[in-house]
Amino acid sequence: MRSGVPAHTSLSTPARVTLLTDFGTCDGYVAAMKGVIATRAPGALIDDASHDIPPGDIHAAAWALAGYWRHWPEGTVHVVVVDPGVGSARRGLAAEVEGRFLIGPDNGVFSRVLADAARSSIVSIENAAVMRDVVSTTFHGRDIFAPAAAHLAGGGSLHDLGPLIDDPVVFELPRPARQGGSVIGEVVHVDRFGNAITNIPAAIMAGEAAVLIAGQRTALRRTYADVESGEICAVIGSSGLLEVSVRDASAAERLGLGRGSVVTVEERDRSVTEGTEG
Amino acid sequence: MRSGVPAHTSLSTPARVTLLTDFGTCDGYVAAMKGVIATRAPGALIDDASHDIPPGDIHAAAWALAGYWRHWPEGTVHVVVVDPGVGSARRGLAAEVEGRFLIGPDNGVFSRVLADAARSSIVSIENAAVMRDVVSTTFHGRDIFAPAAAHLAGGGSLHDLGPLIDDPVVFELPRPARQGGSVIGEVVHVDRFGNAITNIPAAIMAGEAAVLIAGQRTALRRTYADVESGEICAVIGSSGLLEVSVRDASAAERLGLGRGSVVTVEERDRSVTEGTEG
Amino acid sequence: MRSGVPAHTSLSTPARVTLLTDFGTCDGYVAAMKGVIATRAPGALIDDASHDIPPGDIHAAAWALAGYWRHWPEGTVHVVVVDPGVGSARRGLAAEVEGRFLIGPDNGVFSRVLADAARSSIVSIENAAVMRDVVSTTFHGRDIFAPAAAHLAGGGSLHDLGPLIDDPVVFELPRPARQGGSVIGEVVHVDRFGNAITNIPAAIMAGEAAVLIAGQRTALRRTYADVESGEICAVIGSSGLLEVSVRDASAAERLGLGRGSVVTVEERDRSVTEGTEG
Repeated sequence: MRSGVPAHTSLSTPARVTLLTDFGTCDGYVAAMKGVIATRAPGALIDDASHDIPPGDIHAAAWALAGYWRHWPEGTVHVVVVDPGVGSARRGLAAEVEGRFLIGPDNGVFSRVLADAARSSIVSIENAAVMRDVVSTTFHGRDIFAPAAAHLAGGGSLHDLGPLIDDPVVFELPRPARQGGSVIGEVVHVDRFGNAITNIPAAIMAGEAAVLIAGQRTALRRTYADVESGEICAVIGSSGLLEVSVRDASAAERLGLGRGSVVTVEERDRSVTEGTEG
Repeated sequence: MRSGVPAHTSLSTPARVTLLTDFGTCDGYVAAMKGVIATRAPGALIDDASHDIPPGDIHAAAWALAGYWRHWPEGTVHVVVVDPGVGSARRGLAAEVEGRFLIGPDNGVFSRVLADAARSSIVSIENAAVMRDVVSTTFHGRDIFAPAAAHLAGGGSLHDLGPLIDDPVVFELPRPARQGGSVIGEVVHVDRFGNAITNIPAAIMAGEAAVLIAGQRTALRRTYADVESGEICAVIGSSGLLEVSVRDASAAERLGLGRGSVVTVEERDRSVTEGTEG
Repeated sequence: MRSGVPAHTSLSTPARVTLLTDFGTCDGYVAAMKGVIATRAPGALIDDASHDIPPGDIHAAAWALAGYWRHWPEGTVHVVVVDPGVGSARRGLAAEVEGRFLIGPDNGVFSRVLADAARSSIVSIENAAVMRDVVSTTFHGRDIFAPAAAHLAGGGSLHDLGPLIDDPVVFELPRPARQGGSVIGEVVHVDRFGNAITNIPAAIMAGEAAVLIAGQRTALRRTYADVESGEICAVIGSSGLLEVSVRDASAAERLGLGRGSVVTVEERDRSVTEGTEG
C-alpha cells in the first residue's frame, strides 16, 4: 500500500487523473492516452488540465502545473507530457509529493513543484510490466505515462514502477535580487489575458512601492478593476506574486513583455525619504 | 435540503458541474478550479463547457450558456467565470433555475437564462465559510465560485451561500421590431462556422419571406445542404432563431457580419401582393 | 442485450462516451450534447476527444478516430460529429466494432476504423423514439447522435436504433505503390507538431532506406531526438507509419507539406548496390 495516500476503494471518491500536454487535441493523441487510462483504471475520472501548452515549452508546463497540483485531492495523479526529448535517453519519472502523484518526462517539468514541496519520493519508470506491450519511440504519453498513471490511479504502488532516484532534472528558478533600495525581478509567465506575472513575492511589495517595467512606472493596486479600462497597474496575483496588467487589455502586448523581461520595484519610502519607515 | 432538486446520494447519478470560462486552459487556472471542486465534492463529475470565450465577453458567455443549461439534468451546477470586474464591488451570484444551479459574477452572464426561465431563486454569495480560507482579489473562480459549486454539488443548500437578492444585473436583449411589412432584427451571435444567428424567432418566418442582410437578398431554406457549396442561405437554427449561413464557408466573413448587424425579413406576400394571404 | 459487450451494471466500470467534433466549444453546442447525454445516461463518463477538427474536415476526423478508438475499453461509445451535410438525406449511423460503439453521420468519418476492423455491425439510426422530441435540421449532434449515444451507454441495444445496413460511405484510403526499387506514398495527415505522417507502413521501411520528400533526402532514425534541433529526419511514428519530422520545428511548414504530398522511399541497397542483400 502507498504510505499516506488513501486507496481508491470507496466508490464515492473515485481516482482522478489530470492531463497536461502540448499535444493539442485534434490528432487523437490525447484521446489515445485517455483510452489507455480508461482501460487500465476503469473507474478513474480523467480531467483535462490543458493540451494547449506551446509545443515543447517545458517552462510553461512547469508554471501551469505549479498553479494547480496542490489544489487536487490526495491520491490524484497528475500526468504531464511536454516531451521534446521523447525516445532519447531521458528518463520517465513518477513521484509522490504531498500525497499527490506526478508522472512525466525527466526534463524539468516538475521543477516548480519540487521547489515548492518539502518532501518527495521519485522513481524512474523502468518496469516494462506496467508499460504497453509495444513501446513506440515517439509516443511515451500513450505507451509509458498513461499506463503508469492507470497503475497509480488503480491503487498500485509507486515503487512498482521503478527504482528511487534523487537527481531529477530541475531548471533553476530565477530569484529576485535586492539592489540598493530596489528589488530587481523578472517576468516568469505571461497568461492568456496578457498579464505579466513576475517572480517577486507579495511580501517584498509590502508598503508603498513603485513598479518599473518597460520604461513605465506604475503602482500597486488591490485588483485590476481599481484602474480605468486601458490603464496599467500592478497587483498581487492569485499565486501571491507581483503581476503587471492592463485593465481589459494585454499588458504583454502593450508593453512588449515576455518571459525574462526585467521588472524593478522601488520601495518608495526608501527612495524618496531614505527609509524613515525602517 | 434543496427544494425540488434531487440529492446526489445515488452513486449511479453523480453530481455534475459544468465550467464555462474565458481562461483558456494553458495557465492552469481552470485546472486549479477543477481541483478545488474535486477536493470539496469528491464524487462530482466535472464537465467542460468551454474555456474559449473571448476574454471578458459577457455576451458570448450568456449566449453559450443559454444554449446548454436546460439540457443538463436537474441538480447540475453550471459555473460561469467570465469576470472582467473580479475583485471590484460586483457581487458573486448563485441561483436555482428550473432545478439547475448557476454560479458566477453578477455582471449579466445570466441574462439569457433569467429571461428564459419562469422562476428563479438568486442569492448573493457572501458566506466566507464556503469560500477558500484566503480569497484573492483576482481569481474568484478558484476561491469563491469553485467552492460554492462544490457546496451545491455535494448537496448543500443554496441559502447557505448568502442572502436572497432580486436585482441581478441583466443586459437588455435586443428584440426584433415590425416596420410596415418587414421585421427588423439583428445578429446576436456569430458561431465557429461563421453562421450569423439573429434575434428573429422561427414563428415570424412562417410562410414565404425574403431575408435582407448586408445588401444581399436570400431565402429561407430547410438546412444548409439545400443550397450549393458557397451559396448564401437563411435557415432556422438549432435554437429556433433565423440564422444566415454560407454553405461550407463563413457567412460572417463573406458578408462582414458581427453582433449587431441588421437583418430585415420581408414577408413576401405582403410586399409583393399586398397581403392577399391575410 | 448486446452480444459480446459487457453491460454497464457495475458501478466501478461506468460507461464512457467520447466526443469528437468540429464544433469548437465556445458556442455551447458541445455542452448541449453533453447535457443530453448526462440527462439520458446519468452515470456515463463523458470524455472529450477533440472539438478542434477543422470545420467539415472528414479526413482529419477519420484520422484522429483511427488513432484512439481501439485504445478504449469495450462498451465505450465513440461519437463523431463532423457533419457538413447535416439535415440532408445522408444517414446517421451507429456501429459496433470490436466491442466499441461508433455514432456519427454516414459521410466517411468511419472509413479508417472500418478498414482496420475485421467485423462490424452497422445500423442506420431511424428510430424516432430514441431521438429528441423535436429534431432540428442543423444540429443532429444534439438531437440524434447524443440521444443514440446515451441509449448505448445505458446498455440499450444497437438494433433498437434502426435497421442493419451494409453500404456505409467510406472514402478510398491511398495505398503506397512499388515502382522499381522505390515505394511511392503520400502524406495522409499533418499533426500539431508539423510532423507529416505518410501511408507507408514500417514493414516497407525495413533495412537501410533513403526517404525523398519535397526535394529533400533524409534517412530513417529511431526517434526525433536522434538528430540535431532543426534537422529533418524520418521516423516510424506511433501508429506504425513513416513520418517526416524536423526536430523542434514543423516539417510541414519547413518543407511545404500537406495531405497528399508525395514521399518516395528508395531502398538503398537496391539503388546503390543492386540488391546484394537479396
